[in-house]
Parts: sequence; C-alpha cells; structure tokens
Amino acid sequence: MGECVFCDIANGKESAGIIYQDSTCLVILDKFPITRGHMLVISKEHYNDILAAPDDVAMHMFLITKKFSKRAIERLGAAGINIGSNIGAPAGQLIWHAHIHIIPRYPNTKRNFDFGRHGEITKEDIEELVKLLKG
Amino acid sequence: MGECVFCDIANGKESAGIIYQDSTCLVILDKFPITRGHMLVISKEHYNDILAAPDDVAMHMFLITKKFSKRAIERLGAAGINIGSNIGAPAGQLIWHAHIHIIPRYPNTKRNFDFGRHGEITKEDIEELVKLLKG
Repeated sequence: MGECVFCDIANGKESAGIIYQDSTCLVILDKFPITRGHMLVISKEHYNDILAAPDDVAMHMFLITKKFSKRAIERLGAAGINIGSNIGAPAGQLIWHAHIHIIPRYPNTKRNFDFGRHGEITKEDIEELVKLLKG
Repeated sequence: MGECVFCDIANGKESAGIIYQDSTCLVILDKFPITRGHMLVISKEHYNDILAAPDDVAMHMFLITKKFSKRAIERLGAAGINIGSNIGAPAGQLIWHAHIHIIPRYPNTKRNFDFGRHGEITKEDIEELVKLLKG
C-alpha cells in the first residue's frame, strides 16, 4: 500500500467496492459506511481535497455525485441523500484525497455524520451493493 | 412573502445577506448559521432540491460553492469547510429549493450539523460578513 489509499484504489493496488469509473473519477463504497449504500466519488488524480482539484474535475465529480445519488434513491429505496465534502481537519476530513460523500438516508432512522466511526463493510455487502448500484 | 423563501430572495422580494449573484445562482448568508460565515448557494430558478436541478445548473452551483469555500478560508480565517446538500426530509432538508451549504470550520470548535437550529443572524453580522465576503 502506498501513501494514499484512494490513489491505491484508483490505481488498482488496493481493493474496494467499485461502482463506476471514468477518466476523471471513481465511485466506490465507503469502507466504514454511515448508512447502507454510502458511496464516495473520488478523483483519479491526487488532490489533497476537493478545493484543490481543478474546476473541471470538481464539476465533473459533482455531476457523477448527482447521478449516483439518484441511483441510490431509485435502487436502494433511499428516501433522502446527504451529499457532502469535508475539507480540512476541523471539518472532519480523514483521507487527504479529493472525495465527495453520498450518504443515503432511509425513513425513520437517526441522522448522523460520524464519518469513519462505523463498522467496516462486509464482503457480502460489497458484493450485493456493487451488483445493485453498478451499470 | 410567496410560497418559497429562496425564490423570494432570488426575486428580491425577501431580504438576505447577498454575497454574490449571476444568471444561474446566488450566494447568501444562512439566516440561522451553524458557524460564522455559513453560506448557501441557491439556484435562481426553482427546483425542489439539487438533484432536481438540471446538470449544468448543479455543476455551476458547485463551481461557485468551491469558489466561495476558498474565499471563506482566505477572508474569514476558516481552517476547514463542510460542503453539503441535504435532499429529502430524512436527510434534514428544510427548504424545498435547491441549495448547497458552505459551513466554515474554525480550529478547536465542536463540529455539528444542526441545520436551522441556531440563533438568527444579526443585522450587524450580515453587514460585516457581506463586506468581508463580497466582490
């Protein structure tokens, strides 16, 4: 594993539940999901955060965020979505590589933003969610 | 006041701390700021949420979000930013008009996402922050 886990995922050196990829970004399953179907849109190139990414990269990543947010509503039965990006330690940024969170929300569940403080996703969940959300 | 407060602000029928506007969107101060300098990027046209906005509108709004996030770091001394958009009631959406939050974070402060549950911004703060953030 190199110095940046998202670079390693983008380069295929580290495994992840990959939902989508193009020349600019990937959509992966968060390893410590806040809710079922919690996805991350990560840049292919390394930038420390989304503000450090070029405008065209950030805008494309947001387009993809919009697309997969809708997909979570359509395919997972989410009743809402929190889109978010944390920039800097006081904002709760944990991985220093540009990414946007897609957090599906379901009816009658408590909302939290405890990034990185949930149990690790299982192999079975990865398999099931990739199947549901991909393509 | 009409049925949608953000439409009223966009149409000049309701007052707000306006930081920026163009043909697609406005940047305004949140009326119930989570932190000092909490801004909203709102669409000029009415869409129920950011997912309902056309792709080009959403992408432009994200570009403006990026620009004013950087500005909050440069001009307000923020040490981090939470960018976010809440879609649907289970995600905490309170105003049914497309908007993106820019929440500056400062060192050694507790992070919360209690949208709409803070005291109303004062006229003095609006005046000071518009002066700092505009242009």
